Amino acid sequence: MTHDIWSDYFQDDQVNHALLRARAYNFRWAEQPDGVIPLTAADPDFSTPPPIRQALEEYLRDGPLSYGPAEGLPDFRSEVAADLRRGGVPAHAEQVIATDGAASALFLIAKSLLGAGDEALIFDPVDFLFERAITATGANALRVPFDRHDGIDLDSLESLAQRSNVKMIWLCAPHNPYGALIKDEQLIEVVRVASEHDLWIVSDEVWLKIYYESRQTHTAALPRAASRTFTVGGFSKSFGLAGLRVGYIHGPDLANTQRIIHAAHIHSTAYGASTLSQVAAVGGLRDCSEWSRAFRAHLKGQRDLLSARLSALPGLVCDVPEATYLMSPYIDLNSRELEGFDSVLLTDFLLEVARVATVPGNPRFFGPGAEGLIRLSFATSREILLEATERIEAAWPQRREWIQRRLKQ
Amino acid sequence: MTHDIWSDYFQDDQVNHALLRARAYNFRWAEQPDGVIPLTAADPDFSTPPPIRQALEEYLRDGPLSYGPAEGLPDFRSEVAADLRRGGVPAHAEQVIATDGAASALFLIAKSLLGAGDEALIFDPVDFLFERAITATGANALRVPFDRHDGIDLDSLESLAQRSNVKMIWLCAPHNPYGALIKDEQLIEVVRVASEHDLWIVSDEVWLKIYYESRQTHTAALPRAASRTFTVGGFSKSFGLAGLRVGYIHGPDLANTQRIIHAAHIHSTAYGASTLSQVAAVGGLRDCSEWSRAFRAHLKGQRDLLSARLSALPGLVCDVPEATYLMSPYIDLNSRELEGFDSVLLTDFLLEVARVATVPGNPRFFGPGAEGLIRLSFATSREILLEATERIEAAWPQRREWIQRRLKQ
Repeated sequence: MTHDIWSDYFQDDQVNHALLRARAYNFRWAEQPDGVIPLTAADPDFSTPPPIRQALEEYLRDGPLSYGPAEGLPDFRSEVAADLRRGGVPAHAEQVIATDGAASALFLIAKSLLGAGDEALIFDPVDFLFERAITATGANALRVPFDRHDGIDLDSLESLAQRSNVKMIWLCAPHNPYGALIKDEQLIEVVRVASEHDLWIVSDEVWLKIYYESRQTHTAALPRAASRTFTVGGFSKSFGLAGLRVGYIHGPDLANTQRIIHAAHIHSTAYGASTLSQVAAVGGLRDCSEWSRAFRAHLKGQRDLLSARLSALPGLVCDVPEATYLMSPYIDLNSRELEGFDSVLLTDFLLEVARVATVPGNPRFFGPGAEGLIRLSFATSREILLEATERIEAAWPQRREWIQRRLKQ
Repeated sequence: MTHDIWSDYFQDDQVNHALLRARAYNFRWAEQPDGVIPLTAADPDFSTPPPIRQALEEYLRDGPLSYGPAEGLPDFRSEVAADLRRGGVPAHAEQVIATDGAASALFLIAKSLLGAGDEALIFDPVDFLFERAITATGANALRVPFDRHDGIDLDSLESLAQRSNVKMIWLCAPHNPYGALIKDEQLIEVVRVASEHDLWIVSDEVWLKIYYESRQTHTAALPRAASRTFTVGGFSKSFGLAGLRVGYIHGPDLANTQRIIHAAHIHSTAYGASTLSQVAAVGGLRDCSEWSRAFRAHLKGQRDLLSARLSALPGLVCDVPEATYLMSPYIDLNSRELEGFDSVLLTDFLLEVARVATVPGNPRFFGPGAEGLIRLSFATSREILLEATERIEAAWPQRREWIQRRLKQ
């Protein structure tokens, strides 16, 4: 099929409002008051890619939904490995485990490699799941500053890596919430530090397929990285399959893949991913390259529109993300235009006055380094994004009056 | 639709051998050598019930597969509660949690209520998942003898329940591997003991919808039971949805339902059931009563055929199961017809000579009380069951020669 056919798929009329109200949870349409536009959780407003729907329908038409293999369907494991190999990772199907989503993949890795007293390095800011996965094992998460322009603070990484209890470095590449690529030069340094101190690397690459001008390198594709790297991937961001709960881990070798399998009680049938969800993921990897291209083209237009409009708002600084469909504008501390506001207050203001829901950059979601930012997801139609932008612009002049009233309460 | 239409669904030609070879794992068609009939894991050989397929197709046709709510889709929770209420349980949708299968429901309950040094009572024999779920928390599982005719050894239960570290009683009702109902009189005694010692009850009722002459009572439907009972259910046995990994917990009250949700990291998106799997389960609960009736009618015929034929084999005793599609014939210790055999050897003999795979009653699967039995699943077509039975009958005269040869090795 041609590019044009798939582009149609992201037109305004492709967003089914009634169904999103019924189906889209996790701070989105189904959980917001009527009339609020939720640019919250990263989950596209578009329907399932047609090749995936077709793969599911074919699988269903045929017959039984029997027990799948504990580690994942053979097709799933080999398609994931092939996809990673195309990205330069020396991947093997036998090292792939199908998981109940990328989030639970992080918990599984933590569970099998960490225990009380251990330490693991994560970015500040970064998605809250990293800290949760680590602390759930009794281990501690230590934060390495991540600058929105300069990326990882390598001095801090190197210094923290000296600590004897540190066992792992957890990367989020591309970076959530900044939407930043992590440059090869930085990844190479991370691998060097990990090698010197014999640390595992977890590379969460759920955002890797949502890129614009250039692509994120897989950490495990770098020299000497594969043997110490657990690669985590998912299908929610790339193909809109959040509801299906399917992701994967690619282990550094067979023994450590088995270690995860053992920790997860996979063979006791107590863990695993739905076969139907794996069939959807296979459909995504096999048949969605044109759809993905069109999705990225649509997202690029959305990104450019949103960043231009938000940058024009007094008091707000807005970088153009290099990857992801997340944007994280922040309060300009050199200006007094947003005096009195912090992340949470700015989010409250936008919700109350503009009726646009966003995610505040508070410690609960991203760590202390996120203070001052708000995060918006722009994986929606042009129409909805324009409406949200216009509402924010219309609300903006009321910010001083609003914050004075709020701070008096 | 009429009964007759659904009955057609269990005809010989409804079993798709090629697809089962590709899809049916967990010791079944896809994992056995060519030519072996796997009467192993409890998973039907028939295709997905048409009403469920239809529910899935409709859901897919409509649109997005967005993030579902952490605790489960509203439809799922309310259908499960309604189903439990029809069985006399004072159930509420708010106390239902959708889980990634009934097996993982057991692990979740153990994780939220047990810790190192705690003890929990389970049957001997019983499905291995109970012990696994309990010991994974650092707690110990203590075994209460379960007799194939007399059920729970209540004296032993009462005596073990005195121990100060005992926190819970875990029921498997109906009973796997025996296929026995647990009588109301016994359940009432279990509830009394639990009340006296303030113990939680976990009632695994995944087999409750597969019954013949009479039905299993829900434990939580008994007087004073609901406030201390976690009911676990699933859809793999009833509707053949093992691959979809979907089950549920109904908690004793809101606070203890929240406790499970907290322990499971459900709100962090690290846990939950696929929305599509929940849609399938809802289709089962809402629209499959005629299909289920026809399925049970088919299974009853299979049960009667298999038990009559296996009972006629010298040295084997075979009870007729009251529920489940499992049969657990055992070695008659009063006869010398199976001298030298144990569970594992009998299973090996049937696999090698009859080319029929069964599950041995060894401690690994069911606990020490299962020694001497083998377990067969009869949720297949009449043709396949007849073929398996004929193979076993043809192999039977070779048993003495086979065991002598084997024991010499």
